[in-house]
Amino acid sequence: MNNEFVKKIADMKTDFPQWYTDVVLKTEMADYGPVKGTMVIRPYGYAVWENMQREMDARIKAHGVDNAYFPLFIPYSYLSKEAEHVEGFAPEVAVVTYAGGEELAEKIVVRPTSETVICNMFSKWIQSYRDLPFKVNQWCNVVRWEKTTRPFLRTSEFLWQEGHTLHATAEDAREHTLEMLEVYREFCENVLAIPMFIGQKTEKEKFAGAETTYSIEAIMKDGKALQSGTSHYLGQNFSRAFDIKFLDKDGTHKNCYQTSWGTSTRLIGALIMTHGDQRGLVLPPKVAPIQVVIIPIAAQKEGVMEAVRDMESKLKGAGIRVKVDDSDQTPGWKFNEYEMKGVPIRIEFGPKDLQNGNLTVFRRDTNEKTTTPLGDIVSQISDLLNEIQRNMLERAKEFKEAHTITCYTRDEVIKAVNDGNFARAMWCGDRACEERLKDETAITTRNMPFKQEHISDTCACCGKKLKEDEGKLIYLAKAY
Amino acid sequence: MNNEFVKKIADMKTDFPQWYTDVVLKTEMADYGPVKGTMVIRPYGYAVWENMQREMDARIKAHGVDNAYFPLFIPYSYLSKEAEHVEGFAPEVAVVTYAGGEELAEKIVVRPTSETVICNMFSKWIQSYRDLPFKVNQWCNVVRWEKTTRPFLRTSEFLWQEGHTLHATAEDAREHTLEMLEVYREFCENVLAIPMFIGQKTEKEKFAGAETTYSIEAIMKDGKALQSGTSHYLGQNFSRAFDIKFLDKDGTHKNCYQTSWGTSTRLIGALIMTHGDQRGLVLPPKVAPIQVVIIPIAAQKEGVMEAVRDMESKLKGAGIRVKVDDSDQTPGWKFNEYEMKGVPIRIEFGPKDLQNGNLTVFRRDTNEKTTTPLGDIVSQISDLLNEIQRNMLERAKEFKEAHTITCYTRDEVIKAVNDGNFARAMWCGDRACEERLKDETAITTRNMPFKQEHISDTCACCGKKLKEDEGKLIYLAKAY
Repeated sequence: MNNEFVKKIADMKTDFPQWYTDVVLKTEMADYGPVKGTMVIRPYGYAVWENMQREMDARIKAHGVDNAYFPLFIPYSYLSKEAEHVEGFAPEVAVVTYAGGEELAEKIVVRPTSETVICNMFSKWIQSYRDLPFKVNQWCNVVRWEKTTRPFLRTSEFLWQEGHTLHATAEDAREHTLEMLEVYREFCENVLAIPMFIGQKTEKEKFAGAETTYSIEAIMKDGKALQSGTSHYLGQNFSRAFDIKFLDKDGTHKNCYQTSWGTSTRLIGALIMTHGDQRGLVLPPKVAPIQVVIIPIAAQKEGVMEAVRDMESKLKGAGIRVKVDDSDQTPGWKFNEYEMKGVPIRIEFGPKDLQNGNLTVFRRDTNEKTTTPLGDIVSQISDLLNEIQRNMLERAKEFKEAHTITCYTRDEVIKAVNDGNFARAMWCGDRACEERLKDETAITTRNMPFKQEHISDTCACCGKKLKEDEGKLIYLAKAY
Repeated sequence: MNNEFVKKIADMKTDFPQWYTDVVLKTEMADYGPVKGTMVIRPYGYAVWENMQREMDARIKAHGVDNAYFPLFIPYSYLSKEAEHVEGFAPEVAVVTYAGGEELAEKIVVRPTSETVICNMFSKWIQSYRDLPFKVNQWCNVVRWEKTTRPFLRTSEFLWQEGHTLHATAEDAREHTLEMLEVYREFCENVLAIPMFIGQKTEKEKFAGAETTYSIEAIMKDGKALQSGTSHYLGQNFSRAFDIKFLDKDGTHKNCYQTSWGTSTRLIGALIMTHGDQRGLVLPPKVAPIQVVIIPIAAQKEGVMEAVRDMESKLKGAGIRVKVDDSDQTPGWKFNEYEMKGVPIRIEFGPKDLQNGNLTVFRRDTNEKTTTPLGDIVSQISDLLNEIQRNMLERAKEFKEAHTITCYTRDEVIKAVNDGNFARAMWCGDRACEERLKDETAITTRNMPFKQEHISDTCACCGKKLKEDEGKLIYLAKAY
């Protein structure tokens, strides 16, 4: 690379946080908003989000969930109706105290999540078992006042989808909770090319107001965890607090069983830190705003632009997101620019390619350039996009496996995590043990995999002896 | 209609406001949120909005505009940077005064519109004429504290798209302002089947901070106006206030010229009040969540459900939004339900239709039922959907023409408007005249058509004599 072209990105090996910030800002994915902790999602970043939304929305709808929209503003008193919920969210809410030039009689909370306002509506709408299951989702903004913020990872306001469902039985609700967790896992693997650690959160880490919280967690290139999606079984906690009852077939009124589940613009952070490299972003084809950039070389030479436009129109016709950059920047500048922006495929096309009937292609996942005979451009490029998508997932899976270390002692856990890994270990299940580990080492429990194994008779975190039926296999890591 | 099935809707002739509320609530388009003036858009209403968004978003992108997302929260001080802007919006903003458990040093405004926060970002991003034109749009929620609210028409929070563009010259910006107005007009006609009055707003009615505001205005079935979209030429008002400068080709720094333009969930209100009838909603096929409902008659009879499922799969395969209702409700209940919900086509299919090879179709725009031989179901239904879309626009155009009355005196204006019409009249152009008319009669100026005619030498509002080159042809009406 010719350095004069390069917008300097910090060294990811020595300063990963600065590398992340540089990538976010220099690729124009996002910028800082004027109010502390807020973020602007710039067009390039938003185009990634739109591609993610389209894929996720289709999956959610395929599970019989309809979109709706509930108000941003929630009466302060609603928050308090579910005891754990208010405890969890009260410290981080933004509060509207006057509006329309007047002090408000009741303070208003800007939604940090919408269980309370949605439950209020559910209690009006649901009458009978015939109304169940009832499944809605909304795409919206939420606000959680955070002390330290970073674009996409933790911001005062973020965009997300939140699904909320009502069921007649606990069994049905539990099943749906896991069904949506599986939607998230499949989406992350097949669309974002990010493999996930899947499992149940501990009591300490569960959603405020839930009976059980499940999560998908990804490992970033620095070995830290990014919680990427959660699905909660709420039991009857909210339906009791908000009096959501239905007339069951047996003629009695019962409280509904509930779930909620969400994923957010955080996933864009996961995308950056799972696939990015020293040159910048590496985007999986399925969400890349530009899948193929064509750079004409010596564009003024006869036939070059005609051939380029022909390729462009064929690729466009096949639904491939293609861009021709025939601006007056040098090819070198363009190469660096689109590499930084993570465009999966670059086609360089000049007089020699025209003359020899060649296709010169640079793939961003491997940073390799190859020249092959130009055949059916659409199938050549489609195949390569599929191959890149596949390869990126494969590579991320290998990274995940290589950075999951089975540990048996506290020292091993600490070493593994500090070396940039997830620790896989037995944990006694004691909240005090979990809290002490976090306080002393900043290592947190991520989740407990569904497939449990009793790999040791000692808690790796506190050394407590465990009987055969005691303790949990758990993933531990430092987390974003 | 058998009354026992019908969810009672107030008489639209005698109580139009109640008819509107009944339709909104009983069709489950929307409901009231717990905080005063807020609205819940229920799944059926939101599905309409999604169809509108998809159509509008494609049009916006086709004009070279990219989507982005800017923060909900704006520092209070930003609002004051443009003098007219703060005057217009300060009285209706909601203000966050504490967050994260602490009183805020600077109060925060919940965006009523985003010019100020977007201009702040523009001033960082824009350097050179090469960056221009710069065009972004966002789909988001905004908050304007209103005294009297009605679902979709006027709510404390609503959803909208707001486009914001920067240009090197006034001419380019003016052209873009009108280009986007035309996008809105075309969208409303061809997607919503609502014809528009197009023109320029008066000085009094323009956007706070704009040089010129243009609007599209629709006439509702009660003769009242619904402002359905606006496009503003902002000149350099904001670019001066926020110091948005670019280095021009001539080597000097200049302030950009700006536009902004928006449409909102209000358009759903326009849809309801343009096309609805005593039975409820009448939805244009292009935005109807269900375009065709199939009601099996005597579904247990041999062959009926097979034929119905076959129709369903053929229609689905052709991209038509079809629903089969084989629930245990009676056909009569179903007829009423889907008529109320405005489903464009109902197919009734029973043993007789099967035996005779017939297709029995009810079209909601005319409330007529016909039976024809069943041929190629996809082309029969596609043609009918197109015909309904065409007919709805045609009928709305006729209504608009029939309810536009040319007036020459104040008495004529008042009579025309009170009889449920728009008045088309000469106006002297004097703000005091406009204000007096509004105060005394609640009649407001809507807009001044581009094609001006000097139809009279007297101002119809105040009687002032007008020379050949004085006064404006203007539309007047009571407005939502």
